[in-house]
Amino acid sequence: MTTAAGWIERTLKYRFRDDQRLEQALTHRSAGGRHNERLEFLGDAVLGMIIAEVLYRHVPEASEGYLTRLRANLVRKETLAEIGAEMRLGDWLKLGTGELKSGGFRRASTLANGVEALLGAIYLDAGLGACRSAVERMYGERLRSLPPDQELKDPKTRLQELLQGRGLDLPDYALESASGEAHKRHFQVSCSVGALGFRTEASGRSRRQAEQRAAEAMIGKLGDD
Amino acid sequence: MTTAAGWIERTLKYRFRDDQRLEQALTHRSAGGRHNERLEFLGDAVLGMIIAEVLYRHVPEASEGYLTRLRANLVRKETLAEIGAEMRLGDWLKLGTGELKSGGFRRASTLANGVEALLGAIYLDAGLGACRSAVERMYGERLRSLPPDQELKDPKTRLQELLQGRGLDLPDYALESASGEAHKRHFQVSCSVGALGFRTEASGRSRRQAEQRAAEAMIGKLGDD
Repeated sequence: MTTAAGWIERTLKYRFRDDQRLEQALTHRSAGGRHNERLEFLGDAVLGMIIAEVLYRHVPEASEGYLTRLRANLVRKETLAEIGAEMRLGDWLKLGTGELKSGGFRRASTLANGVEALLGAIYLDAGLGACRSAVERMYGERLRSLPPDQELKDPKTRLQELLQGRGLDLPDYALESASGEAHKRHFQVSCSVGALGFRTEASGRSRRQAEQRAAEAMIGKLGDD
Repeated sequence: MTTAAGWIERTLKYRFRDDQRLEQALTHRSAGGRHNERLEFLGDAVLGMIIAEVLYRHVPEASEGYLTRLRANLVRKETLAEIGAEMRLGDWLKLGTGELKSGGFRRASTLANGVEALLGAIYLDAGLGACRSAVERMYGERLRSLPPDQELKDPKTRLQELLQGRGLDLPDYALESASGEAHKRHFQVSCSVGALGFRTEASGRSRRQAEQRAAEAMIGKLGDD
C-alpha cells in the first residue's frame, strides 16, 4: 500500500476509522486548508498524560522530581522529532511550497508537531487505549531503558549536589557583562567556588544558559581536580 | 458524615473504592509517610489532558494559540488554589507540625498540589471518566464562561498587536540596569515607541517581568493618548 493510511497501519499497527482525521494530522499550516495545529494541541496533552501514567506505574520508586524530569525528557521536541524521523513522517507531511523548498519536512519542530497531531487524531478516532498502543510503538525502547536521574539534571543542579556532597558552600554566579538587542542578547557569567579558589566563565544567549555552561565547566574542573 | 470520604462524596459526588488513595492524596510531604507528590504528578497530567479535550471540543473556532492560553489559565496554580479553597480542601489536608504552624493549609501551592493529587487518586481509583466528572464539578462555571483571547495575552503581545494595528514599528526594550545576587535580582527596563516619542520604565525580578511591566505601562500611555 502506498497511502498514508497504509503507512500508519504498518508503522503503528493502527487503522484509522476516519481517514480525514489522518489527512488533517499530516497537513502543515503552510499547506492551507484544515491543518494540524489544533490536533497538535490535543495530542500534546494526550501524550503528556500517557507518558505520565507509564512512568507513574513503571517507576514506583521515583520521586516526583525524577518523574517530572523523565517526562520532560521524553516529550521534548528533540525526542519527538527523532520519533518522527524514524517513522519517516517527513515523507507524508503536506507542506506549502515555501516550507517544502526550505526543507520544512526535515525541521525538528514540524516533525515533533506532526507526531503530536497524529496522536491527537488517533485519540479522536478511537480514544485513549488506541493512543497508548501507538505511543508504545512510537517510543519502543525509550520507555524501557530510562535514563538515570543524574543524567537528566541540569549542570547547576549537579554542581550544587556535587559541592554539597563534599561539604562545600554553593557556588557563586556573577553576571560579568550583558549586551545586545532583544533578538541576540549576549550574557557573560562567571561561576566561583570560593573554598577551592576555582573560577570558570561562560557566555550564552540568556543568563540562565550562560550559568548552566559555567556550571558545566566547573564540573569538568572539579573532575580534573 | 465527617470523614474525608464523605466530604469528597458531597463535594465531587465521587465515592472512592479504595479510601487509602484518598488518604494519600490528602497527605502533604511534611506529614511524612506516603505523601501526595507522586499523585500530584499524575493528576497534573490527567487534568491537563481533560482540560485540553474540553477546550478542543467546546471551542471549535479557537486557534492553537488561544487554546494553549486558555489551558494555561485554567490549570495554573492560582486557579487550582481557588478551587481548593472553594472545596475547603485545607480542612482535610494532613500537614506536618511546622507546615501547620506556618499556615501551610492556606498556601496556594499546597492547595493547588492537593487538587492535582486528588485527581491523580481518582484516576487510579476509577479512570478517566470519573476524573472528567470530578473536573467538571471542580471547575463549574469556569469551563463555561471562558475569557476572551485578549484577556489572556501578556502585555508585550498586546502592545505589539496594538502598535501593528496602528501601522507602527515594534517597541524597543532596553535593559537599563541589572543588579543583585541570584536570589534577588533586580532589572530595570525601558520600553520606547520611537514614532510617538513615548517611553516607559519598569523594574522586575527578571528581565522578562520588567519588560512585561514596561509594556503594560506603555499600553496605559497609549490609552491616554
